[in-house]
Amino acid sequence: MRKIRNEMAKEGLEAILISSNANIFYAAGGYFRGYVWIPLDGETIYFVVQPSGWFEPEKDVTEIRKPEQIPGKLAEMGQAIPKHVGLEYATLNVSEFRRLEKVFAESQLKDCTMAITLARMVKTPYEIELMKEDGARQCAAYRRIPGLYRRDMTDMEFQIEIERVLRLEGNLGYLRVAGNLMEINMGSLLAGDNADVPSPYDFAMGGAGVCPALPGGADGEVMHPGVTVMVDMSGCFNGYQTDMTRVWCIGDIPDLARKAHDCSRRILRRLERTALPGSKIEELYQTALSIVEEEGLGKYFMGHRRQAKFIGHGVGIQLNEYPPLTPKNALPLKENMTLAIEPKFVIPGVGAVGVENTYVVTPSGLECITPMPEEIGQLI
Amino acid sequence: MRKIRNEMAKEGLEAILISSNANIFYAAGGYFRGYVWIPLDGETIYFVVQPSGWFEPEKDVTEIRKPEQIPGKLAEMGQAIPKHVGLEYATLNVSEFRRLEKVFAESQLKDCTMAITLARMVKTPYEIELMKEDGARQCAAYRRIPGLYRRDMTDMEFQIEIERVLRLEGNLGYLRVAGNLMEINMGSLLAGDNADVPSPYDFAMGGAGVCPALPGGADGEVMHPGVTVMVDMSGCFNGYQTDMTRVWCIGDIPDLARKAHDCSRRILRRLERTALPGSKIEELYQTALSIVEEEGLGKYFMGHRRQAKFIGHGVGIQLNEYPPLTPKNALPLKENMTLAIEPKFVIPGVGAVGVENTYVVTPSGLECITPMPEEIGQLI
Repeated sequence: MRKIRNEMAKEGLEAILISSNANIFYAAGGYFRGYVWIPLDGETIYFVVQPSGWFEPEKDVTEIRKPEQIPGKLAEMGQAIPKHVGLEYATLNVSEFRRLEKVFAESQLKDCTMAITLARMVKTPYEIELMKEDGARQCAAYRRIPGLYRRDMTDMEFQIEIERVLRLEGNLGYLRVAGNLMEINMGSLLAGDNADVPSPYDFAMGGAGVCPALPGGADGEVMHPGVTVMVDMSGCFNGYQTDMTRVWCIGDIPDLARKAHDCSRRILRRLERTALPGSKIEELYQTALSIVEEEGLGKYFMGHRRQAKFIGHGVGIQLNEYPPLTPKNALPLKENMTLAIEPKFVIPGVGAVGVENTYVVTPSGLECITPMPEEIGQLI
Repeated sequence: MRKIRNEMAKEGLEAILISSNANIFYAAGGYFRGYVWIPLDGETIYFVVQPSGWFEPEKDVTEIRKPEQIPGKLAEMGQAIPKHVGLEYATLNVSEFRRLEKVFAESQLKDCTMAITLARMVKTPYEIELMKEDGARQCAAYRRIPGLYRRDMTDMEFQIEIERVLRLEGNLGYLRVAGNLMEINMGSLLAGDNADVPSPYDFAMGGAGVCPALPGGADGEVMHPGVTVMVDMSGCFNGYQTDMTRVWCIGDIPDLARKAHDCSRRILRRLERTALPGSKIEELYQTALSIVEEEGLGKYFMGHRRQAKFIGHGVGIQLNEYPPLTPKNALPLKENMTLAIEPKFVIPGVGAVGVENTYVVTPSGLECITPMPEEIGQLI
């Protein structure tokens, strides 16, 4: 709350009204249907339209049926509606927004998305503890992956067995992703040349998928010797999540694939030491790119037929949080940011290689919270 | 396309620009990132920002980087931007909308959500064929459910084994639901009194879930004798989906639960005969309610602690399509609507009972496309 209010003050917001699922979970510690009213000065009010079995009403919880009741309830509680009110322009649809425009007809409305996004970008010790738990559980499930492989499996059959193990480990089976154009089931498993098929989603890697309705990830083909299998699946166990990628191979793979995989690990080792509070995001990207170019691997970096222009992203309640790790982003790292860093390569005819870990930014470098061996594992 | 244009004409829309995932899939037969421009007179244009591996460019496909290029491209293709342009107010967020407002600065913008919703409400023979395939595959997976049960399982362990079987049958593992406040993994499994826990989502039934971040469905408790287990899980295999619920029990359950389950089946049998093209939605609801009241089961109908005020909904690309089957909806049924009808009951201390089938509206009544025995199955 203090962090949200700091960002609100910087943007001249005297109060904000939150209604998106991710931000309600952030502000309340549990999801309910309704609104959270956060004034710069004054008490946060939880307006609950439909409660859950988890959200315990406290003194600040106010039941309403519809948002039109909010001004009257605020007046009853002695809170005036200020001149500058923030709403979430990135998640409110036009119909909802027009309704809220009438509710706050006397105020000047402004987008509060970035204020909350920037507050969420730096995690509290409690959030980091939850994410470390995610990392430990994701590693526990990933360690079982080699034992799930059977000869002549399709990529999808392999993914389904991994999904089951993740779910038995406590994975919620639902990935919160920012942006309504992002759709994914429990994650991405890419074997062989399917890794080189572009997808319309803004994930680092593509894949054809098994259906035109969800064109990403595994394509249902049998995995033959000579390919790599990249597993980048859900680490969401408690409302937060870690993001983690490991690679296995079937039979022999070319040296080029191993070289690119080693390059990914070299990038991570360098960034773990050099990325510090105050480092600029763009420096991380440039460091990665310079190592890639030293090795002459540029044309395979972050994809081959289509190349993504980032090497990672913030992660937390949503898979893709602030900051994106892009080439032109002068934002400095801050202590307790959580970053998923994923320098990956697509080698035509072989598949995807590279490692992704989730890190906490600390004064002495990046702390890995998805610790597990990074070598390419041999499936057969 | 003809149905969309019919609805556009009724609402005075001379052209619409679609960008939501579900409507792009509807208009293009496959998902890509971009926009579909549908003029009332003139050719549909597919503006592709990011293609997928499935969407084959044809003569009408136009690559763009950003929506600001649309007016120029239309001019090149000899299409004028008309005065009345429709955008999807129910899915566009405020930021996207303001950007498109500038792109169409000379036009009057209007919401086209309902025009497409009403077009999608009545299915084509091709869509019905896909949904029948969904129904057959969902039934094939559901038939394996009793064999997945093991004594002293938790509800979540049972759900995970069902998810795996659905996935192996070809389920996409991702449920398209309308409305950004609806979140669910592969569906709902409710055992015992967890069925009586309200959830903030607008599904027919609730459940606590295992985490405050996703408060719906299975709660992770061991399933003991004396409870019912209601399975209402994903039927999405091809971009369309069926919606289907069956109930099993563990040990003995009270007569009241069996009576309520039989009442649900009686409602379905009655509606299968009496719901015809031209029947009003509200009549379906009132028919169901009168049967419930004859049996004195009103206080358990559609929930107990919290009661939902509908008995079903349209289904297709999204789980919850038009029309909702509510008490005050004078909309007449039309041939080739697809409806999920789910008269359910929650019996305190026992759990949820009732059946859900997906139906096609035909001139001779409702055709069930999720055919499978409806009796309460015995797990042990």
